[in-house]
Parts: sequence; C-alpha cells; structure tokens
Amino acid sequence: MHTRFRTIGIDVGGTNLKVAALWSDGTVIRSLQIPTHADAGPEQGCERLIESIATLLREEGIDTAAMHAMGLDCAGLVDPERNLVVDSPNLRSWEGFPLAQRLEKAFGVPTYLENDVNAMAYGEWRLGAGRGTRNMLCLALGTGVGGGLILDGRLYRGTHGAAGELGHTTLDMYGPRCSCPNRGCLERHIGAEAIVERARKLLVERPESSTLAALPPHELTPGAISKAAAAGDTLAAEVLEKTGEFLGQGLVSLVNIFDPERVVIGGGVARAGERLFAPARRVLRERAMSVPAARVEIVAAALGNDGGLVGATLLAVGRAAESA
Amino acid sequence: MHTRFRTIGIDVGGTNLKVAALWSDGTVIRSLQIPTHADAGPEQGCERLIESIATLLREEGIDTAAMHAMGLDCAGLVDPERNLVVDSPNLRSWEGFPLAQRLEKAFGVPTYLENDVNAMAYGEWRLGAGRGTRNMLCLALGTGVGGGLILDGRLYRGTHGAAGELGHTTLDMYGPRCSCPNRGCLERHIGAEAIVERARKLLVERPESSTLAALPPHELTPGAISKAAAAGDTLAAEVLEKTGEFLGQGLVSLVNIFDPERVVIGGGVARAGERLFAPARRVLRERAMSVPAARVEIVAAALGNDGGLVGATLLAVGRAAESA
Repeated sequence: MHTRFRTIGIDVGGTNLKVAALWSDGTVIRSLQIPTHADAGPEQGCERLIESIATLLREEGIDTAAMHAMGLDCAGLVDPERNLVVDSPNLRSWEGFPLAQRLEKAFGVPTYLENDVNAMAYGEWRLGAGRGTRNMLCLALGTGVGGGLILDGRLYRGTHGAAGELGHTTLDMYGPRCSCPNRGCLERHIGAEAIVERARKLLVERPESSTLAALPPHELTPGAISKAAAAGDTLAAEVLEKTGEFLGQGLVSLVNIFDPERVVIGGGVARAGERLFAPARRVLRERAMSVPAARVEIVAAALGNDGGLVGATLLAVGRAAESA
Repeated sequence: MHTRFRTIGIDVGGTNLKVAALWSDGTVIRSLQIPTHADAGPEQGCERLIESIATLLREEGIDTAAMHAMGLDCAGLVDPERNLVVDSPNLRSWEGFPLAQRLEKAFGVPTYLENDVNAMAYGEWRLGAGRGTRNMLCLALGTGVGGGLILDGRLYRGTHGAAGELGHTTLDMYGPRCSCPNRGCLERHIGAEAIVERARKLLVERPESSTLAALPPHELTPGAISKAAAAGDTLAAEVLEKTGEFLGQGLVSLVNIFDPERVVIGGGVARAGERLFAPARRVLRERAMSVPAARVEIVAAALGNDGGLVGATLLAVGRAAESA
C-alpha cells in the first residue's frame, strides 16, 4: 500500500465534466465542474479536461510525481481490460476514445476508468451509506436507472464489464417498450420519463387538484414533482408513492436474487427520499422472500454527486497498489 | 491441500436420500438411494442414512481416518455458520435438525452442509457444464425453480445464505400468485405445475389434437409432455416452446444483472433440452442487452442427479483444507 497522497478524480457525464482534487483515501479537497458539450466531441472535451486538471493541480500545489493513480468514471459500458468506454448512449462520440490513456500521458500518472454506477457503488461502500457491509446493491435513479454490485466485499463487474444493469430487470414482460430491447423494465417504470408520464396522466384526469397543472410542460420534472409533494400537493405525492411501489417491486427480484445486507439508492430522482423509499420497503416486505426481506436495509446514498468520482479514485488507488 | 482421498457425499431431498462413495476430486465411485420418508421425521431418516453410509464404507473398504471431510446437501435455506437447514418447504420436520453434526459424530469426520442448488452450481462449475468459466449461473428446473451463482470464481451465498432464488425473479408483477409471496415469478411460469396447467388448458381447447388427452390426470407430467413432444405431438411441443419462452424472459433479467459467461440448466424438467433452450435463447437474444446477450451460453447441466452431491463434497473438501 502507498501512504496517503493527493490525487485527481474525474467524472465524465453526458451533461457535465467534474474534476476534483482529493486525498487517496477518498476525502474530497475541492471540485470544479465544466459543461461536457458532448456534441463538440471528445478531443475538445479532453483538452478542456486537461486544462481543468492542470489548474487544480497548480492551485492546490499537488505534485504529480507523488500521485500513484488517477480515477476516472464515465456513463456507459466500460471495457476494463482496454480501459475504454465501448458503449455509451449519452456520449456516443466518446465511444472508443482513449481518454484514460490521454490523461495518463498528459500527467504521467496511471489512470483507471470505471463505469459511473460501479464507481458510485464502490464509493458508497467504502465511505458512504454502504460502509461496513459485505453485500450491497447500489441503484442510481435518474433519466436511466443504473446499478452497481458489491458482493462478498468486492465490486462485481461481470464477464464484459456489463453487469449491474439493475434498471433492466423485468417488472412486467407484457408492459410498455423500454429504451432497451425488453418490455416493462424497472427503468421503464421509475425512470424520469416514466415519472413525468405518470404525473401527466393524473393531471389530465384531475387538473384542478394539483399545483403542477400550472407548470409549462418542460418544467414538469421529477424535481418539480418532488418539490410539490413536499409542499403538500397530493397528486404529486401519489405519483411518488406509485413510483416507490414500482421501485419496491424491482427490489423484490433483486433481494430474492442477492440476499443483500443493504441497498443504497442515489441519483437525482432519489432526492424524493422517504416518499419513494417507504412505499418501496412496504412492497418489498409484502412480496420478497421473508428471510432476506426481513433484514435488508433500503437507504439513501450519502456521497451525493461525488460518489462516482470518489469511488473511481479509490478503485484506481487500489489497482495501482496491486500492480506496484 | 490434502492429497486425493475417498469420501462420502450425501444428498437429502424431499423424496430420496442419496449417498455416494466418491474421490475427493469429485469422481463418483458408487452411489445408492433410499426413500426419505419425510413424514417419519429426521431422527429415523438420520439413522437409516448412517446405516447406508456405514454399508458403503465397509463395502468399498474406505477408512474414515483418511477422510478429511464429508459433503452434505439439502433442499432449503441453509445457515452456513450453524451448519443447519433453517427453512425447507419439502422437509419441514428436518428444519433445525443437526444432521451434519450427527454424521460428524457418527463417523468422526467434519461434515459440511450446503443448499442443494448451490452445491449443484458448484459441482457443475468444477466438473460439469460450467468448467472453465468465471461467472456462471445455474438453474434447477423441477417442481420449484432453484438457482446457484458462481461469481468471479466463487460461490455466492448472500448475507443469510438465501441468495440465488432465481426462480423468484418477477416476469409479470400483475400475474398469478406464486408459492412465494410475489406474483408472476419465473417459477410460477416454468415450474412443473405451471407446465402441466399450460398443457391442460390447451387440451381443453383442442383435445383431439394430442395423445396427452388420453392420459389420466395424474400422469400428465412435464416428463410425459416432454416424451410426447419428442414423439411428434404438436400440442406438447407447443407447451414446451411457450415454457422455453418464459425461461428466456427470466434469463433477460438475469443476463442484464450478471453478464454471465454461461447459464447451466439442470433438474428433471430440463431433460426437455433444446425444446426449452432454443426458444429461451431466442427470447434472450431479442430482449436482453446486446453485449451480454450476444456471447452468453445456455447449456444443459452435465452431472445429472449427482451434481449436488459432487458439489457438496468438493465444497466440503475445500472448507476442510481452509480450516486445516
């Protein structure tokens, strides 16, 4: 093992690029964010990323010679052998772009790439809401529903790095088409679009009953629904309750399959918190096998937006130590 | 590691007790089977089991002094810490009975208990259809649908030994009640009862079209349906085709979650073979995420009825070596 050192963690998302200076034990020192401009392609994005990192290093007085590894995480399917994103619906032009290799060359520091929700799961497990567990599932609720698996105290990636697509667990094989080739997936029931669709339907039936009816269509988002529910809007509360029940139904299969100690739930949509988790727990306890369902904990993620970046850094530090 | 020795493997099922003399590398020398008589309770069953083991040891000239471990597997939820069956629908009276401890005392050999499908998964992985893989799922198709998980080259048991209930993955949350607290599970669609129900429904609609119509009700079994299909009965073939499609739909979730290299399918119902597997593969390839679905192999188990007993023995030998 290396002694504690300062390093850089990078999170590449479809909307934003995030860069943080942090300690090798995962403590974030300072982070900054720039837009991805995915349309402009990866060359341009990579250049701006290198500038941001250089700025952080200079301003924090971090010496790259003492950095054993940098962590990088990205939405999409990561080939861990080749250290490349190979499939990413929100970052199509970045597929196959050797970002980790470029950063490695620019700073002379080994850089390891990880899938964003895998990284988040690992971060939450080591330093967040999953601490102290041996078997932990992580769900990231947003436009999509991602997953990460900590099993027997290790991150499980699957054969091609594609494991953990927990959002594409079937709830209703006869249900509506999903963005994936399946029908009625968990994501199709609790992804941002499904939540908005659910609200819209209820608003058509009972427009007089909700403050949401006054919003222009593009402002009807999971965030707005969550806010309205918190302010006492019963239609908004009903939308979240129903969404939480579907989340619980997804957890039934996952708890029967994994018998986990804890399920950690993060991502923007999860900010609705107990309005989602309480109905989810109820359905889970009604429908899952009694032994695993009785004791599993359903909790909110603790690291917020930093989870991925922290996890990617911890994983990178571990990989560097292994290969040292 | 111990050098190769001869030992005993025991399989406790709701119908039969199986005992085998086998090499510590899993090669079966000879096996015998006696009825469980579950109604008569575990004391009586245990006594008969001890007699059978003693007979085998004597007839094969096996010296218990050279046996480092015996393997035991049983249907139901096993608490691996306490080496006990804690929940077993088909062996209710055996729950909490210290069978491993009794055998250990009777023969002076450490005896380790494992869940039957976990043991089968491990056996198939080490010596059967799962050889050479790192990530393998095992399904046992019968009255129930059981599962076992080999992940990153190790048996995954979950937090309370309850993981791997792959038969209780949801296909249709609005579907018929399952034997578990959920609705529309995989087991509810492809368990023996569901297959018979499917055949019965078609026979009511088109009794003239199938040889199965002539069978007395209690002879309409998955085995009879399989046999009829093999003999060219189109209604029977249709029943298996539909069952295989549901199997495939279950695999969609499992492949999206695990990204496994191989899925090994055994159990009595799986003897229908390609009549189930071919439609399962088709649905899987249509509906699962393309990267994991493209390369996963769906294959028949290779060890037949011995899989559990062989796996339990190999696991026991491994545990004895660890604690040595």
